[in-house]
Amino acid sequence: MKTFPVLPLFFLATLVATNQASDGAVSHQIHLLRPKTGSHGSHVPGVSCLSWRLGVETHNIIGWKTIPAACEGYVGHYMLGHQYRKDSEAVIYEAHLYAKSLNLTNDGKNLWVFDVDETTLSNLPYYARHGFGVEVFNPILFNEWVSKSTAPALPESLKLYKKLLALGIKVAFLTGRPESYRKATETNLKNVGYHTWETAILKDSSYAGKTSLFYKSSEREKLEKKGYRIIGNMGDQWTDLLGTNAGNRTFKVPDPMYYIS
Amino acid sequence: MKTFPVLPLFFLATLVATNQASDGAVSHQIHLLRPKTGSHGSHVPGVSCLSWRLGVETHNIIGWKTIPAACEGYVGHYMLGHQYRKDSEAVIYEAHLYAKSLNLTNDGKNLWVFDVDETTLSNLPYYARHGFGVEVFNPILFNEWVSKSTAPALPESLKLYKKLLALGIKVAFLTGRPESYRKATETNLKNVGYHTWETAILKDSSYAGKTSLFYKSSEREKLEKKGYRIIGNMGDQWTDLLGTNAGNRTFKVPDPMYYIS
Repeated sequence: MKTFPVLPLFFLATLVATNQASDGAVSHQIHLLRPKTGSHGSHVPGVSCLSWRLGVETHNIIGWKTIPAACEGYVGHYMLGHQYRKDSEAVIYEAHLYAKSLNLTNDGKNLWVFDVDETTLSNLPYYARHGFGVEVFNPILFNEWVSKSTAPALPESLKLYKKLLALGIKVAFLTGRPESYRKATETNLKNVGYHTWETAILKDSSYAGKTSLFYKSSEREKLEKKGYRIIGNMGDQWTDLLGTNAGNRTFKVPDPMYYIS
Repeated sequence: MKTFPVLPLFFLATLVATNQASDGAVSHQIHLLRPKTGSHGSHVPGVSCLSWRLGVETHNIIGWKTIPAACEGYVGHYMLGHQYRKDSEAVIYEAHLYAKSLNLTNDGKNLWVFDVDETTLSNLPYYARHGFGVEVFNPILFNEWVSKSTAPALPESLKLYKKLLALGIKVAFLTGRPESYRKATETNLKNVGYHTWETAILKDSSYAGKTSLFYKSSEREKLEKKGYRIIGNMGDQWTDLLGTNAGNRTFKVPDPMYYIS
């Protein structure tokens, strides 16, 4: 499954199947999600979920553990509806415009750094079953999901990936997924269309207890020391894009579901 | 005029008055702006103005000279409607939460840096007459407006300013306005409620030809060399918030009307 428009139907079907076996809460959610798939404004009195989402995307609202309970429906509609797709398209359009505009020396050292989760692969099938971020992150359940290697590609990111390769730009994946999930991650990437890369960096045990900001900055520094020029850097978390050696230009793809510090 | 909710009416009244004297285009705009003051989605086929705005606010879309012509109505509705106010409130709420949470040594060296235009003062009365950013920036007309010292305060920012002072935090204004507009700027700030500050930094001629990023970084560095701790830094442009000596935490207030590099 490589295209996004069919995801909502896929989710609903999957959720219905899941629900029939076990889970009344999910059924309630499906009901809520059916009538509206847009992402406009907030329907929650007293909380503008759109303002909250903007605050998250602009790095004003940081360090949060879960989305506001009042915004669960809003975030679900956003993620399953048109606006998430449109917002992603707008970022990828700018990134491609930028990449095309560069007059690159084709020496194999031009590198584009992609994060993985919610940047190149979508964990929406997992999060749709876990309240779109309203539940506290559960690493055991999430890693079970990762082990399955069944995350779909974010379709716009996959298009950009292919266009970057066509421009002669190398790709690096830099993810906070632990090194122990390398095989599952690489299999998943290949299965959905990311067939080649210069390097795929997963978090090894030496970074235990370190922030994502530190880990990603350190690994980007190593890449630059190897002679790569990081011409672009794309992630769904600001910790992918801030810090040192951030790249000549950074691109923030949307993610209102979780925050990584 | 210190409260924002009355601004739309104020604008409409002013615009009507202006129009009766001279300008048919403004009348047309008033008509467009009357029926809808929300900010939801895009009503422009093929362009998601909401995605464009998100792209601007997240620093994905940079270096632009004017807003997309197709989004003039959208940006106008946003700026005059509720969502701009709500988005501003959400940022200010987070900033105040953060400031309150700090366990500060009250030695008079804790500093909050505020940008001026579209951060503490609103130029919406000017931009409402100039297509909300659809017209190329005209420094002569804009400086005429600045000279009048009649820009209203952004009401949420003014509230934060007062709360910061109450917490014993000093305030610095750091603006790209030229040094020659110091008197007009200081008069305007005082007139609308910003009665005191530690320093107000305007751009002097030594920065001619330099970017805002360089100017603001350099001036923040000088502040830190004087012993100030920049605990917060708030601006409507990413060039206010990126660069060096950016402060312990940065806050991006919304501005979809113009881009400064």
